[in-house]
Amino acid sequence: MAVYTDISEEELGSFLDHYGIGELLSFKGIAEGVENTNYMMHTSAGPYFLTLYEKRTDRNDLPFFLGLMRHLATKGVRCPQPVMRDDGEMVGELAGRPAAIVTYLEGMWPRRPNVEHCRAVGMALAQMHLAGEDFGMERVNSLSIGDWRPLWEKSRGQAEEVEPGLIAEAEAELAFLEANWPSGLPRGVIHADLFPDNVLFLAGKPGLIDFYFACSDFLVYDLAICLNAWCFEKDHSFNLTKGMALLRGYGFVRPLSAAEIAALPILARGAAMRFMLTRLYDWINTPPGSLVVKKDPTEYLRRMRFHRGVGSASAYGLADHRADA
Amino acid sequence: MAVYTDISEEELGSFLDHYGIGELLSFKGIAEGVENTNYMMHTSAGPYFLTLYEKRTDRNDLPFFLGLMRHLATKGVRCPQPVMRDDGEMVGELAGRPAAIVTYLEGMWPRRPNVEHCRAVGMALAQMHLAGEDFGMERVNSLSIGDWRPLWEKSRGQAEEVEPGLIAEAEAELAFLEANWPSGLPRGVIHADLFPDNVLFLAGKPGLIDFYFACSDFLVYDLAICLNAWCFEKDHSFNLTKGMALLRGYGFVRPLSAAEIAALPILARGAAMRFMLTRLYDWINTPPGSLVVKKDPTEYLRRMRFHRGVGSASAYGLADHRADA
Repeated sequence: MAVYTDISEEELGSFLDHYGIGELLSFKGIAEGVENTNYMMHTSAGPYFLTLYEKRTDRNDLPFFLGLMRHLATKGVRCPQPVMRDDGEMVGELAGRPAAIVTYLEGMWPRRPNVEHCRAVGMALAQMHLAGEDFGMERVNSLSIGDWRPLWEKSRGQAEEVEPGLIAEAEAELAFLEANWPSGLPRGVIHADLFPDNVLFLAGKPGLIDFYFACSDFLVYDLAICLNAWCFEKDHSFNLTKGMALLRGYGFVRPLSAAEIAALPILARGAAMRFMLTRLYDWINTPPGSLVVKKDPTEYLRRMRFHRGVGSASAYGLADHRADA
Repeated sequence: MAVYTDISEEELGSFLDHYGIGELLSFKGIAEGVENTNYMMHTSAGPYFLTLYEKRTDRNDLPFFLGLMRHLATKGVRCPQPVMRDDGEMVGELAGRPAAIVTYLEGMWPRRPNVEHCRAVGMALAQMHLAGEDFGMERVNSLSIGDWRPLWEKSRGQAEEVEPGLIAEAEAELAFLEANWPSGLPRGVIHADLFPDNVLFLAGKPGLIDFYFACSDFLVYDLAICLNAWCFEKDHSFNLTKGMALLRGYGFVRPLSAAEIAALPILARGAAMRFMLTRLYDWINTPPGSLVVKKDPTEYLRRMRFHRGVGSASAYGLADHRADA
């Protein structure tokens, strides 16, 4: 929930002078999103989405994020498309911040994802991975295995206040992940944050938004993130039917290799660690008066514990392909 | 900044079954507004605005507020129009809250109101007052002179922490206002909260929104509220040119009587008191983790002090009509 930067009609009007999208009719700050400031905008040419990038988004990464959306849209992936400026750029400056306009994507994110949503998002993720194959740019994942320990060290001092015993548990898990993290899996562009609020469904068809964590990494790691994000119930139990639907939807579009299947449990543990750590950091470091709703890190601790008990990908619903087969 | 109540596509879809406004395409929580939960909604019939009324809005008042908007719209006042349900009602229930849909009003509220905005809002306020003359309903102003002392008592204990000396100053002012509050002025429907963020300008034409403080009171008290809300600079100085523009704009459409002109200074003091008191109450009683941005009560204390030094309405820019003339 975030509008960090208020803008005036005059500022926005001058900004829009560099776009060919008609006259400004209205703009309203959007409560969704925690990283950047987002406005829904109506112009005489239709609805658009305006984002002002706040400090947690590195402006040097914007050509990657926006270039990716553009690339994916031309490949038929349903996602917002950056609107070009009259200088040929996709990023301008507004209220002292980098800012971009993208087309407005209709659709609703599922507050209570069901099996059909999981199947559809699995397919959409695989389509995105295939569409990204010939995207020419790379971006290092700044929240991958090598980044977790430094992030953990920033929260370690207060970790026991959040969950007694967390220091021992997290450090054993980090050591395991560091010792066993896979290598050599198929790589490509991943979304890296495909939670339900980043998938807008319209008449059953998913559209992907918020590519601001996208990066180059193992493709199947993206699927492991989705397993965490889509297939657990509010009581933190794993829903096997949803897991099956997600994995089958993905595999229908892009079949997983045996190595990818074998790596799924540890990647799911890693994905749970990644979200536990960023939530823990925010939990500890977000000032009480902040406008951001803090997300509970222990939700991902619970998922991590579940994944620790998983022997092979069959536990996630890939019954036909045992990791040891 | 407020989305207090999240809703699902399924809930909203069922709610929309009672309206003839097409298929739901998207909805996004709006960051503006502090009292209720607001969503911007796109349907196949166009854009709409959905409000869920939270606890500070009394559901018994909704027929007044929505009926007024409907009445004003039919009289040519640019304002949102409630959409009727298939049962002939304007209010339904969504996520356990009273909820209504209104037409979406294009336009932008001025972050830095200028003289022309003040003139236009003066005219629009007077037009609203005239259009409200034959509106059949009444609603007691629950934030008028008789309500200020009980409200003050709820904050008094912590008032000195906000501004040293506030107890003596506020109580002297309350005593003066209670002893000198006018009577017999022309009454009617007032907006009672016409701040810049409640006026959406499109091509210079103002549109009025957020009628959820509207009530029956002295018409010129509404103008006194606007003097406070529109004609002070960020440094809390009074801008006489803006005052003149506001008052002349109003008087051009609905000339003020001598009694109304004479009452303007004390009504302006009262209006400053009213906003000082509600802000003070919120300042003290809003929990630190709240999503609402607290507004500084001392801004209105400063305005109150300015108004105390005003001898007649000429100080606000009504040069031709001295109160003692």
